[in-house]
Amino acid sequence: MYQKPMLKEGSLKDLVIVVTGGGSGLGKAMSTYFLELGAHVVITSRNIEKLNKAKIELEEKTGGKVLAVQCDVRNYNEVEVVLAETLKEFGKVDGLLNNAAGNFISPTERLSANAFDTIIDIVLKGSKNFTLAFGKHWINTKQKKATILNIVTTYAWTGSAYVVPSATAKAGVLAMTRSLAVEWAKYGIRSNAIAPGPFPTKGAWDRLLPGDLKEKFDMKKKVPVGRVGVHQELANLAAYLMSDFSAYINGEVITIDGGEWLKGAGEFNMLEEVPEEMWDMLEAMIRSKKKK
Amino acid sequence: MYQKPMLKEGSLKDLVIVVTGGGSGLGKAMSTYFLELGAHVVITSRNIEKLNKAKIELEEKTGGKVLAVQCDVRNYNEVEVVLAETLKEFGKVDGLLNNAAGNFISPTERLSANAFDTIIDIVLKGSKNFTLAFGKHWINTKQKKATILNIVTTYAWTGSAYVVPSATAKAGVLAMTRSLAVEWAKYGIRSNAIAPGPFPTKGAWDRLLPGDLKEKFDMKKKVPVGRVGVHQELANLAAYLMSDFSAYINGEVITIDGGEWLKGAGEFNMLEEVPEEMWDMLEAMIRSKKKK
Amino acid sequence: MYQKPMLKEGSLKDLVIVVTGGGSGLGKAMSTYFLELGAHVVITSRNIEKLNKAKIELEEKTGGKVLAVQCDVRNYNEVEVVLAETLKEFGKVDGLLNNAAGNFISPTERLSANAFDTIIDIVLKGSKNFTLAFGKHWINTKQKKATILNIVTTYAWTGSAYVVPSATAKAGVLAMTRSLAVEWAKYGIRSNAIAPGPFPTKGAWDRLLPGDLKEKFDMKKKVPVGRVGVHQELANLAAYLMSDFSAYINGEVITIDGGEWLKGAGEFNMLEEVPEEMWDMLEAMIRSKKKK
Amino acid sequence: MYQKPMLKEGSLKDLVIVVTGGGSGLGKAMSTYFLELGAHVVITSRNIEKLNKAKIELEEKTGGKVLAVQCDVRNYNEVEVVLAETLKEFGKVDGLLNNAAGNFISPTERLSANAFDTIIDIVLKGSKNFTLAFGKHWINTKQKKATILNIVTTYAWTGSAYVVPSATAKAGVLAMTRSLAVEWAKYGIRSNAIAPGPFPTKGAWDRLLPGDLKEKFDMKKKVPVGRVGVHQELANLAAYLMSDFSAYINGEVITIDGGEWLKGAGEFNMLEEVPEEMWDMLEAMIRSKKKK
Repeated sequence: MYQKPMLKEGSLKDLVIVVTGGGSGLGKAMSTYFLELGAHVVITSRNIEKLNKAKIELEEKTGGKVLAVQCDVRNYNEVEVVLAETLKEFGKVDGLLNNAAGNFISPTERLSANAFDTIIDIVLKGSKNFTLAFGKHWINTKQKKATILNIVTTYAWTGSAYVVPSATAKAGVLAMTRSLAVEWAKYGIRSNAIAPGPFPTKGAWDRLLPGDLKEKFDMKKKVPVGRVGVHQELANLAAYLMSDFSAYINGEVITIDGGEWLKGAGEFNMLEEVPEEMWDMLEAMIRSKKKK
Repeated sequence: MYQKPMLKEGSLKDLVIVVTGGGSGLGKAMSTYFLELGAHVVITSRNIEKLNKAKIELEEKTGGKVLAVQCDVRNYNEVEVVLAETLKEFGKVDGLLNNAAGNFISPTERLSANAFDTIIDIVLKGSKNFTLAFGKHWINTKQKKATILNIVTTYAWTGSAYVVPSATAKAGVLAMTRSLAVEWAKYGIRSNAIAPGPFPTKGAWDRLLPGDLKEKFDMKKKVPVGRVGVHQELANLAAYLMSDFSAYINGEVITIDGGEWLKGAGEFNMLEEVPEEMWDMLEAMIRSKKKK
Repeated sequence: MYQKPMLKEGSLKDLVIVVTGGGSGLGKAMSTYFLELGAHVVITSRNIEKLNKAKIELEEKTGGKVLAVQCDVRNYNEVEVVLAETLKEFGKVDGLLNNAAGNFISPTERLSANAFDTIIDIVLKGSKNFTLAFGKHWINTKQKKATILNIVTTYAWTGSAYVVPSATAKAGVLAMTRSLAVEWAKYGIRSNAIAPGPFPTKGAWDRLLPGDLKEKFDMKKKVPVGRVGVHQELANLAAYLMSDFSAYINGEVITIDGGEWLKGAGEFNMLEEVPEEMWDMLEAMIRSKKKK
Repeated sequence: MYQKPMLKEGSLKDLVIVVTGGGSGLGKAMSTYFLELGAHVVITSRNIEKLNKAKIELEEKTGGKVLAVQCDVRNYNEVEVVLAETLKEFGKVDGLLNNAAGNFISPTERLSANAFDTIIDIVLKGSKNFTLAFGKHWINTKQKKATILNIVTTYAWTGSAYVVPSATAKAGVLAMTRSLAVEWAKYGIRSNAIAPGPFPTKGAWDRLLPGDLKEKFDMKKKVPVGRVGVHQELANLAAYLMSDFSAYINGEVITIDGGEWLKGAGEFNMLEEVPEEMWDMLEAMIRSKKKK
């Protein structure tokens, strides 16, 4: 059932939602569901051709209304253009989904300072640019209600080797989420985040784990529930957090990873490899020694 | 809209869910919504009279089927009876909501060792008893899918003065949630938790903040979104986590408190008291000094 | 150098410190160093013979003064006896180190409710009993300064499979630590915790990982720094937290595990297995695709 | 006693440690103690005059050897110059303390995108620049042992209103700390962080809370232990984490704030305002109702 849409029809009716990086991958999946629930969606990307194709595809699939605006999230002026175009087209904006990101694997010592900066600029400054431009607008126009949703990672808190620029930038986004959840609540602006585990997408994952790395490190083996995520599962959660149904959730980051990060974290989780027969043998032995 | 039910009709159709402490307060609110979504619900409490009244009320309101079983959660044998009665009535059980709890405010040094133990026994051992009895059943009968949902508190992680037995016990429940999310995932059993902020209920809150303490410490002033929670908001979240729609959420604790705990935690959040005019005055001054 | 004592001589001069489980393993290592730094130490254990031998050994090694008091930490009355004996012998008490614990590995569904309870009683109720008895004493006698130090685990927060009773109980101890750090600070009582990673001891570790499990699961391979901990390293940290030098650290849990838990937790940490040559090959490929 | 230095003499003997922002405030306090413990220290700042004065002051006070190198941490080339100058002067480098920072209070919607970026650049990119340049050096030259210590804030995890750029950037530094603690451990490089609470310094705090804000928001009232921190307390902790005595602490962030953030975070901590007499009155009432 988890592959199915979960919210009542019209749950996002007439809301205008901007989804950065909304033209592909998970951004497109979430945009699709927002549209199906009655929202109007603005999608952005640096690649306007891909974006226009996505717009047509989304409109045909859902019957909804999509605006595509080219934007390099690193450039505050371009972000202000997205806001202006959105207002011109729809007259208002209700939600912002900071989904655009960049990531690549590498031993950190092989990175140039510039390569590291690029990820910080796309992920952290990009999210900041959208948050700042839209927040200023909502506050200046005294809009009563608005929602910010940021896509982070499960390693925003624990860190992770080999994707350090991304870990660093996503941690920044998480702190921004929590800070503004408190500071901007008085203006009716909620801020939350989602930390997705492995939700493979054709493009991003092939780029992230190139060559045969994807086979070598089968992500689903790391996930307690034994599988990777399905896009609709993420879309369900995102729609919930974007909708008024989650009005009392604020400053929260929700992890949706099948338990992946916890499986690595717990000190004795590796005992999963002990077979049942060995537990049988150990049981008497262990219990007889368990006093103090 | 947040006062409305959010999931599609039938989202919990034919699931059998046990709700400890399901006869009153938040437990009753969640039970009601589970029933409305098509589940059969077993409610437990030490007080069988109140429980039977709640059963009738719930069935009349929702048209669903409710089983009421008296149970002191501290007693493992009584918990096994709940399981047996559930299986006798419904033939199976799919979900467990550990909601029963006890709490009272007191300076810790005024507590007797016994008073402290009572809360540990109800909250931690009670949740453990149900989890263990139901988990053994699911694993022994090779049931393919089951869900555990535990109600904890926002101070399970940060601790809190004046409710230390509760903080202690709920922290234990949270660690159990995360541990079993990994260990029992291979049996198809998911474990999650909800950390609710202030959701006042007639009974529990009057007991928790007696006399005029409730007026003196107006909880909603501590909440960034400026209000306490509505029961349906908690019910919506609980139903989501109990349903298959959240199948990829495992080992997670979701805080639903309007941002309350974060508002206290952030070091400079008290600057909210600075009026706009003062910010105007400070702005030039601050900016001129921001180099360093 | 880390095998050496680090604090200036006399750093704990004339302090009276009670160490539960102080007669063996890590408790003995910490007691030894406390004595070397000038403290008087009270050690407790259920096994009075072992305890008396440890007392003699400690006194001979350090020239300090040790009191050995038999105590089952689960029994509040016996804990009150430890307090009384301590006051009778030394006239005061300044520090409490809750170190006594119990743990064993087992699939959780194989545990009886009683076996689970036993660990909760020893670890959580035991620490609570000492904390409550000593806290009441300090507050009633208006002692100006006192320190509580609790030994928890790295999985008190993340949980861990196969040691769920311990995870549950230690999480409770951690919440108690943080709660009282705030509540009792006004009485001059500080509360902190240490979360040690693998610090093997003859007794406890042979019991925890019996048979050839210890070889099969070589803990040091899980630790980024490539080794297990040395007892003096833990003793150095404990002495720091027990001393006045850490007077501004309060409510904190310090993890000392060489990075073990983080290594498991980070999503891409497994890429450590990628050899340098493969990174060479991937580098050009990855970088050429890193846009978006 | 906490105002006194705690480590044995010579604990940092002959280590070469770079302290960014080491010429003033807390950076100077930590540099002083490193020198007293036998280290050679390199201090950096954008203001070379202030830096040269600090160098003379530090050398006169401690008899140690100090190198002052002008550096804007945002500029990777300048950071490489610091490394080169350090190697030229001392022949090696053993420790890096990322202490330079920038911060100012402001409602976030009043910030320009540029003002926000400036803090990210100084705090996050600055720390990244030093970490990357020094890490590359240590790895390329196969140095066996090195230590990175980063100064973050207590709100790196919880976020904080009114200092959002700082919260964002410091969270990034924390994630970098944890990521590299795992990734670079195989090269003998440890990474840790300190999250200090209120440690007032003449310059930084006057800038942070200008005008009469400092009186209006008396930080020490927020701290359970009832006072702000003393510089030597931070220096003691920093020296411990920089020394080999903490060799088994890796990837950890140690909070030293007297319990400040926890006091805000815990849901019922505000009950501190209830006077003893009221507790007396409530006690009977509460206890009589505590069942359920």
